[in-house]
Amino acid sequence: MSSVVGEMSARGVREQEKFEQFVAEVRALVDARLGRWLDGRVAEARVRGAEVGAVADAMRQLVLRGGKRMRGVLLVAAYQACGGEGGANTVLPAAAAMELLQGYLLTHDDWMDGDDMRRGGPSVPAAMRAKFDHQDSLSPPRAARGQPVADAASVLAGDLAAGWALASLLELTIAPARVVSATRELARVQEEVVQGQILDVCGVPGELGDVETTYLLKTASYTVRGPLRMGACLAGADAAQLASLGAFAEPLGIAFQLRDDVLGTFGDPRITGKPWGNDLRKGKRTALVLEAMRDPTSREVLERVLGRSDASEDEMHQAVTSLEVCGARGRVEERISALVRESRAALDRAPLTPSGRALLVQAAAALTDRER
Amino acid sequence: MSSVVGEMSARGVREQEKFEQFVAEVRALVDARLGRWLDGRVAEARVRGAEVGAVADAMRQLVLRGGKRMRGVLLVAAYQACGGEGGANTVLPAAAAMELLQGYLLTHDDWMDGDDMRRGGPSVPAAMRAKFDHQDSLSPPRAARGQPVADAASVLAGDLAAGWALASLLELTIAPARVVSATRELARVQEEVVQGQILDVCGVPGELGDVETTYLLKTASYTVRGPLRMGACLAGADAAQLASLGAFAEPLGIAFQLRDDVLGTFGDPRITGKPWGNDLRKGKRTALVLEAMRDPTSREVLERVLGRSDASEDEMHQAVTSLEVCGARGRVEERISALVRESRAALDRAPLTPSGRALLVQAAAALTDRER
Repeated sequence: MSSVVGEMSARGVREQEKFEQFVAEVRALVDARLGRWLDGRVAEARVRGAEVGAVADAMRQLVLRGGKRMRGVLLVAAYQACGGEGGANTVLPAAAAMELLQGYLLTHDDWMDGDDMRRGGPSVPAAMRAKFDHQDSLSPPRAARGQPVADAASVLAGDLAAGWALASLLELTIAPARVVSATRELARVQEEVVQGQILDVCGVPGELGDVETTYLLKTASYTVRGPLRMGACLAGADAAQLASLGAFAEPLGIAFQLRDDVLGTFGDPRITGKPWGNDLRKGKRTALVLEAMRDPTSREVLERVLGRSDASEDEMHQAVTSLEVCGARGRVEERISALVRESRAALDRAPLTPSGRALLVQAAAALTDRER
Repeated sequence: MSSVVGEMSARGVREQEKFEQFVAEVRALVDARLGRWLDGRVAEARVRGAEVGAVADAMRQLVLRGGKRMRGVLLVAAYQACGGEGGANTVLPAAAAMELLQGYLLTHDDWMDGDDMRRGGPSVPAAMRAKFDHQDSLSPPRAARGQPVADAASVLAGDLAAGWALASLLELTIAPARVVSATRELARVQEEVVQGQILDVCGVPGELGDVETTYLLKTASYTVRGPLRMGACLAGADAAQLASLGAFAEPLGIAFQLRDDVLGTFGDPRITGKPWGNDLRKGKRTALVLEAMRDPTSREVLERVLGRSDASEDEMHQAVTSLEVCGARGRVEERISALVRESRAALDRAPLTPSGRALLVQAAAALTDRER
């Protein structure tokens, strides 16, 4: 037995190494393309006017300032898993499009949530305030003019990146029928993410229905299912492949968001890049918080900090501890494990190339078993 | 001579009647498709959650509440002018997409400008405030949570319609290569409109550079050039056809916006559907206003009302009169005429079908010689 286990783990290590190499390759290609492409876009924007250049450059900086490029990695992996040829370069415009789409979504989200930090630097809304806030004093009275300039600019920066995502995707040079079906997936992603965000932002506080529905729409769609199905469409996948990738993606995407919730509260800020206790101070009704609210003691401690940017360090520590003590963290971890098993079972049944499947196995682990 | 003139005007009347019939047919088809399509979309949204349904329905109401459907008309006319077959029904998903795109743009604009009325009813931002404002008192303190719910919902309603526009366009069932090139035009439109809006909203007051550049990006792109070029792409137009439609579209689109400026100040509110003097009270730096500001007397009178929602009726009447007396209105009318001639000359040179060209001649008149 021990030699079999030894062989299996040696194989596991090899698969993980292969995946890490694959990730590094895709990331380098995506970063290089985004750098070139965005430099061109910002230069064009500057020709339109200084303000247009400033808004475009703020988005460029956000997109280029890291991010794990996991959406692009998933897209390329699915492309290969469905027998797509020519490697990552063939679908690079689509992989880069996912990063531009994320720039749009993060910016509208950060504006709605009032988040000033993103990827270890200023969020686009914070950059827009630094750039444009002084203009409100020069302008006609606010009542007549509508929104402050920085708010309008933040929304427009996101709108611009949404247009860029579509433009990048349509630079694909493969069979037009495949491009059309991948673009249909993009439209579906846009629609679902917005619906998820509406549930999240406009839902009556305390009456959040099914948090996993929100996660499916708001996160799983653009983080996992969209990239996978777009990669599959570009490979000319058949209905069985598309359906099985969907069945793999949905539980995985929800598990990814649950892991995010755990990291948002228990993660090391030096590793996650997000301020400690941010989710609680923002009053986010995460699955973790909703689990803990069922326990009356925990609820009381949590309500002292939820949505209170002025909560003391002491109150914050008590709240974080209570999430652990009442068992909420454990139950969320169990749910993550169950979703990962469900996702893995769908993958095992899927009609995919062996090398592509191996990449997706590793990608699933990277999405749900991570520290940032 | 008189019989030739008589023949020409008889022919002109026949062309105008044909055009009016064409407009009525396209409008009926677009309205019918939008009605069915949006009913389905709103029903799906309601399944996601009551709030999602409410946001989707506010957008549905805006899109269905009139509008002249001129963008769809231009798209179908260009399709026919470039030899496209099968009539309006073949490109209906694209014509409807233009109306959904407009729903997105109008909503983000109305939110930025603080406009509460649109198409004779509440703007989407006004509808969102009526629906969601009470929720802010239930939520955690605003400082922690970011934007008021209604502001977030207004932006999300626009985002949703942007996704819908793309989804509708991709329901086309014609050759995928043509769909891809039309979708590239859509991406270009999205990018340019946003750039124009940035110039308009974020430019330093009083330092507006070239107002016609803003009009080209912000209005001409999605009102005239985009629809025409998309229709042409769907017909499989060659480079010469695309270029000549662009040369027809750009001056026409600028003239359209200049006509809008004139109507926004001198138009009959009962016909335009917009409150009297709205542009002035909002402080909009239209070409009309910029022309008049060169005249010191006119400037003084205008500065008393620009951006002042509380300006008296008397001050407003003086300002409107000064726009006429100082010659600004006359100069804008002259510029409209020059642009219309430039546009018409490009059309006369364009390699198009005679019936399609005749429709475009009439469309140009409808866009620039109108009362609402």
